[in-house]
Amino acid sequence: MSQDHLTAWLWATPNSNRVSILFEELGLHYEIVGVNIRRREQFAPEILAMNPYGKIPIVAWDEGGSRRVMFESGAILIDFALRHGRFLPSDGAARSRVLSWLMVVLTGLAPLSGQAHHWTELAPEKPTSAVTHIVGAVERIYRVLDRQLAASTFLCDNYSIADIAAFPWITRYSWVTLRLDEFVHLKRWHDLVASRPAVKRGMAIPDGARLEG
Amino acid sequence: MSQDHLTAWLWATPNSNRVSILFEELGLHYEIVGVNIRRREQFAPEILAMNPYGKIPIVAWDEGGSRRVMFESGAILIDFALRHGRFLPSDGAARSRVLSWLMVVLTGLAPLSGQAHHWTELAPEKPTSAVTHIVGAVERIYRVLDRQLAASTFLCDNYSIADIAAFPWITRYSWVTLRLDEFVHLKRWHDLVASRPAVKRGMAIPDGARLEG
Repeated sequence: MSQDHLTAWLWATPNSNRVSILFEELGLHYEIVGVNIRRREQFAPEILAMNPYGKIPIVAWDEGGSRRVMFESGAILIDFALRHGRFLPSDGAARSRVLSWLMVVLTGLAPLSGQAHHWTELAPEKPTSAVTHIVGAVERIYRVLDRQLAASTFLCDNYSIADIAAFPWITRYSWVTLRLDEFVHLKRWHDLVASRPAVKRGMAIPDGARLEG
Repeated sequence: MSQDHLTAWLWATPNSNRVSILFEELGLHYEIVGVNIRRREQFAPEILAMNPYGKIPIVAWDEGGSRRVMFESGAILIDFALRHGRFLPSDGAARSRVLSWLMVVLTGLAPLSGQAHHWTELAPEKPTSAVTHIVGAVERIYRVLDRQLAASTFLCDNYSIADIAAFPWITRYSWVTLRLDEFVHLKRWHDLVASRPAVKRGMAIPDGARLEG
């Protein structure tokens, strides 16, 4: 349960924000190491030694006499939620719901938003068919989340890792050229989550890392 | 722990295969309902009532006097692995490793392979920049998995839900216009996983659903 010398390698990215928000919500003490992805520091040998995929966030801590390393924000959210018994219900039905919605976010919203950001902003060439296809795919997920949030304060029952996983992507809605105002319930949820003190701290921390980087 | 009247809504898709492989590995009794995605049956009202995202696989079962529903293959893998205490280690370090590699597969390999399949095969227009970008992204993940499998029989320690999640996508390598022969360790792993009786049954079952559909 204890995580001694907990360290997080982060940058001002949505997936880094997931980890910093969860760690803030859990009240953990952790050291942040900024990894400047514009300078491709995620491919430095010491980062690749921890995560051969060359991506952040990465976390590490001492436990049972050895140094534990995890990568992939979704994995870190699930593992730390299970360890601390928070933000992922232990009850069967509620846990199943959170895992289902978490996966809509992890495997749909986030990777498709990342691709949309590529085609709408980062790519030197922006073929219309690529932009239309991917923005349409993300918009479909926004509508599904909006409908879900019409009936529920949070994505499932109580505030959970599904909300924590979604927030840093939804708050960057401009990356996917969508307008949050057009999704009334998603907007209401966004503002509610944004008002949480731990979310404010979690969103700010990688920015601090960036400024020091 | 018991799942009475377990039903799986599947088609001959990689994500459906994940569920049928896991259920076969666990020796579960379950009924299959074929959902013909070419006829867009995943948007039928009875499917949307279970999963508002309109995607398969979906599973449902009776427990504690109510009908439980789950969607998203990654969620089903984790939930059923936890319930049955198999294919996801309960030990902290081993669990953390499986979750990290599982997420490389769930949030990287699978959604990017799906996009690659779109641009190399399904899209009416196939802009070169879209094909090059997405095939390159998938190839990078193939190389990461190949390096991991150079040092390990399975993706992490023992056969796990990370392998079950990856196999149905890797076996469809032609969808992403890659040649499995060029990834020696991934090919070795692929053939080893393919030889498991439960994997053979799991890969065949949604095909049966398709034939009846």
